[in-house]
Amino acid sequence: MNKYWSDVLKRLEPYVPGEQPKDKKYIKLNTNENPYPPSPRAIEAIRQAADERLRLYPAPDCDELKHVLAENLGVKKEQVFVGNGSDEVLAFSFAAFFNPGEPILFPDITYTFYPVYCQLYGIDYRTIPLDADFNIPVEGFLQDNGGIIFANPNAPTGKFMDLASVEKIVKENIERVVVIDEAYVDFGGQSAVKLIDKYPNLLVIKTLSKSHSLAGLRIGFALGNAGLIEGLDRVKNSFNSYTIDRIALAGAAEAIKDTAYFEKTRAKIIHTRKWVGPELEKLGFRLTDSLANFVFASHASLDSEYLFKALREKGVLVRYFNKPRINNYLRITIGTDQEMEQMIKVLKELI
Amino acid sequence: MNKYWSDVLKRLEPYVPGEQPKDKKYIKLNTNENPYPPSPRAIEAIRQAADERLRLYPAPDCDELKHVLAENLGVKKEQVFVGNGSDEVLAFSFAAFFNPGEPILFPDITYTFYPVYCQLYGIDYRTIPLDADFNIPVEGFLQDNGGIIFANPNAPTGKFMDLASVEKIVKENIERVVVIDEAYVDFGGQSAVKLIDKYPNLLVIKTLSKSHSLAGLRIGFALGNAGLIEGLDRVKNSFNSYTIDRIALAGAAEAIKDTAYFEKTRAKIIHTRKWVGPELEKLGFRLTDSLANFVFASHASLDSEYLFKALREKGVLVRYFNKPRINNYLRITIGTDQEMEQMIKVLKELI
Repeated sequence: MNKYWSDVLKRLEPYVPGEQPKDKKYIKLNTNENPYPPSPRAIEAIRQAADERLRLYPAPDCDELKHVLAENLGVKKEQVFVGNGSDEVLAFSFAAFFNPGEPILFPDITYTFYPVYCQLYGIDYRTIPLDADFNIPVEGFLQDNGGIIFANPNAPTGKFMDLASVEKIVKENIERVVVIDEAYVDFGGQSAVKLIDKYPNLLVIKTLSKSHSLAGLRIGFALGNAGLIEGLDRVKNSFNSYTIDRIALAGAAEAIKDTAYFEKTRAKIIHTRKWVGPELEKLGFRLTDSLANFVFASHASLDSEYLFKALREKGVLVRYFNKPRINNYLRITIGTDQEMEQMIKVLKELI
Repeated sequence: MNKYWSDVLKRLEPYVPGEQPKDKKYIKLNTNENPYPPSPRAIEAIRQAADERLRLYPAPDCDELKHVLAENLGVKKEQVFVGNGSDEVLAFSFAAFFNPGEPILFPDITYTFYPVYCQLYGIDYRTIPLDADFNIPVEGFLQDNGGIIFANPNAPTGKFMDLASVEKIVKENIERVVVIDEAYVDFGGQSAVKLIDKYPNLLVIKTLSKSHSLAGLRIGFALGNAGLIEGLDRVKNSFNSYTIDRIALAGAAEAIKDTAYFEKTRAKIIHTRKWVGPELEKLGFRLTDSLANFVFASHASLDSEYLFKALREKGVLVRYFNKPRINNYLRITIGTDQEMEQMIKVLKELI
């Protein structure tokens, strides 16, 4: 604490991301990164963009990247917003669509950054408890509110809400903005983007960090009605005229265009997730039905915090959340087959 | 306007950056970009960073870049904050140190993004008029306030306030944060960074966009007391865990290290500025005494808006601000000698 801090800053409890350790080489299954490298075409595009043009500001409107995303997703360019990672897109969305004094709703177990954004912008919220099986209860989101946000698939449970239920929530809250955070949707879920033409209150947020192996490049985007997108652009232009550098613009566009590579790598991750689940069950774990690039697992007899630490000791990093309801779970990112085999081998030694 | 917009968004009037035209090739003297390419070492570092490591998140604390900046500037690492362009650093500073209901002070003529940040965060402000020669009046900043910000050299005047005056403002406002925006200081001014050990309320903000020819990479930074820097990091970690991508981290560090290149290119710009001024005066312009990488010029008989349009017509882009007190000025970025000769040739044809 410092006497010069603003009132808002004094109240803030920042989000804590998963660790990026440098002490030794780990099998890194703690921050839901993709185990496969980015598209070689994206890397080549980045190298090509690394030249004297860097002296010039990037395109402030991200016009070309928006165009590529729109083509790829079958939407209009004015339905696309681009930001410096989906965290930035989320932050702008809270500022753009939610008001202090009108509590928004999100699940009690979800991305733990949402309450931090609320603190930052002075927005009140109420949490809706997941049911006993960690499903998001649709009825909970049919009450009076100032806006709604949830992740689908949800984090860290990995559970996916079917599109009919998503649509019900969007439709029944037509006067409020409903934000669906689809960071993990490309690993088996279905995107709500097909609903944006129908519902002017629906905003879908995605990222290249997971499914396009570009966590290190920081590109997120939002899809929705042109009115919502204009709002996001106005917030962005009141914060930073140029949020995405020339290199990231070039690499992201090429990664999006390389659909064959995207399909291949996401299929590999889904394949790995499918065999990892039963293997973990054999070892005494109970798993949620995850459609994300991670599994969420609780062991019948062994304490999760103990397992987290023991795995770390043996060179395998996973994520443990010391929070009510989920403090006996581990979130384990899906790595390569080889990494998962090694992880299971280590677990066998521990159990 | 859209019915889903928040109250804050409805009130926002976004900042409008200088145009980045694509219709034809211009001599581009409108957004204060550096005419020289970035350090070849920086470009090489970027190419080297373009590999499979992009699948991993960047260092959330920007540890290595902070270390390089600290070494280069002779400060401690905990006195350095890094952001996605100095606009982002400015935005975080407004959130971190200024409060609604406690009006901050800035000059009536300065970077026009400051009032936009105030709108975004609901912060009130009072403007202090520059004197008739466009100097920032020190006494104006010795009244009750909720914080102070100004650019030094100021924009778009280019005028520099001597460090003794800066120190007086900082010292007399020891209970408030004073932010000095030094985007242009490397072209002949003196940085207030040497005062940060002495004054816990001083924050100095700089950028690689101008003096390091890296507008396209988006790197800004702030220097100040560790308590202020911790505050900025907390705001950043409540907004976006990873604001700077791996490529930008690598390129920026190398650009900072290449001090020889930096010294060479900034000396060239200062040299060009020195001969351009008298040439413009010969053509009937009156100039402020700019220590920035631009000149601010008003013609004795010809209208600035006319000149702006006529120059554009002839392939030379400069910046015109249709604002009280400065609507008969042109802000002309210092380009290469060749570009400035061409600009003067075109002006001679027009006058």
